[in-house]
Amino acid sequence: MEKSEFVKEIADINADYPQWYTDVVLKTELADYGPVKGTMVIRPYGYAIWENIQAEMDRRFKELGHQNAYFPMLFPYSYLEREKEHVEGFAPEVAMVTYAGGAELAEKLVIRPTSETIICNMYAKWVQSYRDLPLKLNQWANVMRWEKTTRPFLRTSEFLWQEGHTLHETEAEAREETMQMLEVYRTVAEEVLAIPAIVGRKTEKEKFAGAVETYTFESMTRDGKSLQSGTSHYLGTNFAKSFGIQFQDREGKLAYPHQTSWGTSTRLIGALICAHGDERGLVLPPRIAPIQVVIVPITLKNAELVGFCTDLNEKMLNLGIKSQVDLSDYSAGYKFNKYEMKGVPVRIEVGNRDLANGVVTVARRDNFTKNTLAIDSLNDAIPALLDEIQKDMLAAARERTNARIIDVDTRDELVDTVNKGNFVRVTWCGDRECEENLKKDTAISSRCMTFDQSGKKRKCACCGKDLAEGEGYITLFAKSY
Amino acid sequence: MEKSEFVKEIADINADYPQWYTDVVLKTELADYGPVKGTMVIRPYGYAIWENIQAEMDRRFKELGHQNAYFPMLFPYSYLEREKEHVEGFAPEVAMVTYAGGAELAEKLVIRPTSETIICNMYAKWVQSYRDLPLKLNQWANVMRWEKTTRPFLRTSEFLWQEGHTLHETEAEAREETMQMLEVYRTVAEEVLAIPAIVGRKTEKEKFAGAVETYTFESMTRDGKSLQSGTSHYLGTNFAKSFGIQFQDREGKLAYPHQTSWGTSTRLIGALICAHGDERGLVLPPRIAPIQVVIVPITLKNAELVGFCTDLNEKMLNLGIKSQVDLSDYSAGYKFNKYEMKGVPVRIEVGNRDLANGVVTVARRDNFTKNTLAIDSLNDAIPALLDEIQKDMLAAARERTNARIIDVDTRDELVDTVNKGNFVRVTWCGDRECEENLKKDTAISSRCMTFDQSGKKRKCACCGKDLAEGEGYITLFAKSY
Repeated sequence: MEKSEFVKEIADINADYPQWYTDVVLKTELADYGPVKGTMVIRPYGYAIWENIQAEMDRRFKELGHQNAYFPMLFPYSYLEREKEHVEGFAPEVAMVTYAGGAELAEKLVIRPTSETIICNMYAKWVQSYRDLPLKLNQWANVMRWEKTTRPFLRTSEFLWQEGHTLHETEAEAREETMQMLEVYRTVAEEVLAIPAIVGRKTEKEKFAGAVETYTFESMTRDGKSLQSGTSHYLGTNFAKSFGIQFQDREGKLAYPHQTSWGTSTRLIGALICAHGDERGLVLPPRIAPIQVVIVPITLKNAELVGFCTDLNEKMLNLGIKSQVDLSDYSAGYKFNKYEMKGVPVRIEVGNRDLANGVVTVARRDNFTKNTLAIDSLNDAIPALLDEIQKDMLAAARERTNARIIDVDTRDELVDTVNKGNFVRVTWCGDRECEENLKKDTAISSRCMTFDQSGKKRKCACCGKDLAEGEGYITLFAKSY
Repeated sequence: MEKSEFVKEIADINADYPQWYTDVVLKTELADYGPVKGTMVIRPYGYAIWENIQAEMDRRFKELGHQNAYFPMLFPYSYLEREKEHVEGFAPEVAMVTYAGGAELAEKLVIRPTSETIICNMYAKWVQSYRDLPLKLNQWANVMRWEKTTRPFLRTSEFLWQEGHTLHETEAEAREETMQMLEVYRTVAEEVLAIPAIVGRKTEKEKFAGAVETYTFESMTRDGKSLQSGTSHYLGTNFAKSFGIQFQDREGKLAYPHQTSWGTSTRLIGALICAHGDERGLVLPPRIAPIQVVIVPITLKNAELVGFCTDLNEKMLNLGIKSQVDLSDYSAGYKFNKYEMKGVPVRIEVGNRDLANGVVTVARRDNFTKNTLAIDSLNDAIPALLDEIQKDMLAAARERTNARIIDVDTRDELVDTVNKGNFVRVTWCGDRECEENLKKDTAISSRCMTFDQSGKKRKCACCGKDLAEGEGYITLFAKSY
């Protein structure tokens, strides 16, 4: 198949994956660079994906009894300092407001990098009794983390996200919430984004600053790297103690509530690009695609053909399909390439002869198959095809992902295998120093300790230390963006 | 009717309206104060109202062909300076980031007080040809304006809003867009919020900094003051020239596009409180209420009664009504007062005898009427009642509003009438100095020049200057929050 002018515009995915990524983001108009280093503009095509992600997440949050709220973006720097690990983790990345309303401020204000501290400050005021619990709030907001190396969606100084913050009477309840929200993320990733979620627990080194435990879902890019795509934290009573959140329990005694927080961000759009994109650009699963079907008449000169395409588009819209017909005066070939690059799942091509024969050509973006379908079958065939593509895309991504998770036993194998674009699954001793040394030397990091801990070896694959029976953790290592 | 403990908690609306307002906001848990002066936390009950407003607005924007996008919150201070009037208007209110990622920044960054400048910066890059027009984007975002005197929802340093920014080939098209979006605001205000929209054009003094013309919808508080509740600006080519946005027109010549911007914010929640609230607290119109119907059993001791209330709630939910049943162990009287204060449009009370008789008591929040209705009539009666309340609330608010818009002819009458809690409609000369003097001396400001300009007098009611035939403007003056 000949390369189109669009394909020429994006770098070779096999030769230069990072450049391919940037090209796809810019050329498909998902995003653009903002004027301040590290900031991005989310353009309508990218923002429509974010709106779809929001709707899917928000509905699930609410079904589980969460309510949305909004907390101020600015809070005193001193709040960050109240939780020791938290300030160590976030202080290097914060942006601060020092001047406002024509004068220097007496106290420096932080733009939220995350909202645990300001929310805890309010919770301390609102919570008095076990009757006030559980308190399950979520916020959709922008946050700011000043990063050195940035890339649209994957790492930007400002990004959009949701952050859930809940308080519970007991540790068990809070731990259940933590796992439940990880499960929500896994479900949205797999069922909606068609991204296989690699789930597990973060190591001490990699966990959220201030958490007792962090659970993560990682996704794999097509060059075999890892993206931390959503995290759910059990915070214990760390923040409650720092901010003085106490409640009268059922026995009338004062107690600290157990807390969780959990978040996903516009990075999910990056994960989507990286999980499915191919040499021609974006590939979007139907359930998240802003345009699910595009209808392209081969010529605009036949008024009957144009009328047919317009009517077909109406029919698709009436079925609840996000359909578009392109009647612009570009060539049909240009349009084919454009919507391929933009990752539209299904393209319907109609020529004069097709119309005469009562058929159309239906092309799938994900696997490039084309079929001739009878016009009167489309009302059933197109919705069924969209479902099939959704299922096939998850299966294909899962196959690619599983093929790149490789069991190894030694450090040499670990480094070599990861450097070839894979994850490794190893037995790791659990020592922070071991993990830190590996990262320093090779830029390889632990991604998570898997929930399935069966099959542990008696030696750490990372540092070679001998392990006792049951010691160590089955852990995934990889490079990450 | 005896005063409840809830009513005792809120100030007398007739004696101290500002305190009544603050009490209502805090006690009904719409919002709370943030730790930084001038910031607010929007609590779930308030945020649910905002989500309803967003849904109503967003649907209408999209039906008219607008797309959502997201632009960075931070931009260089120098951007503000490119449009002379714009920087004069906003510079005194901006908050600035001077320190980020562990170091002083080379260039001070502004937290957006509004986004014309950063959006124009991007539009200059994106727009080349008339084929790229119209460009109709909207953004849902937080903005920051450092204000001296603040009040939750009405004026806070950070607030949530939407800002539309559009570019058009011609002045006529841009002016049409300006008026169309004002009409969207008027429709949402009247049909959804049941707030009579007082519409017109702002004077030169009161228009948006950088606009050619600003159109506004003002709403009236129950103490007769004005709230600027939404504005739509025709920006001409001012910003396009400052930011170098040019396009090749249909004749192949370079031209500047004509621009609009328009916005509404969380202030609409303040407008809602102020337009309808009464001595017992909030009164919410059904179409925007987070809870439309609350079902209260008179006793919890009768299991059959509790079961009936639970079933009735399910039935209401299945009708698409936002219904809740309150089975908490507070007294029925406490619950009545609570939901009255929270402004829930309809309360259904059910006692043992009611159940035996196959009836319930239905109480309206807006006019305190109570009716006994047969249980088997509720599926039809409740939706119809919600529609009726919606209609009646708009009619009642309109009657209150119209009664307080008073025609006067002299400055003494003007000041006296406004000070008694009214708007005045006068013939005004149009001189900026006249308006500025009035505001300086009396804190009374022009709200808008009405669309209907018939009936002009030959003397300015404000400064007494004689006017020629047709000179001057029919203008509304009032005090504002």
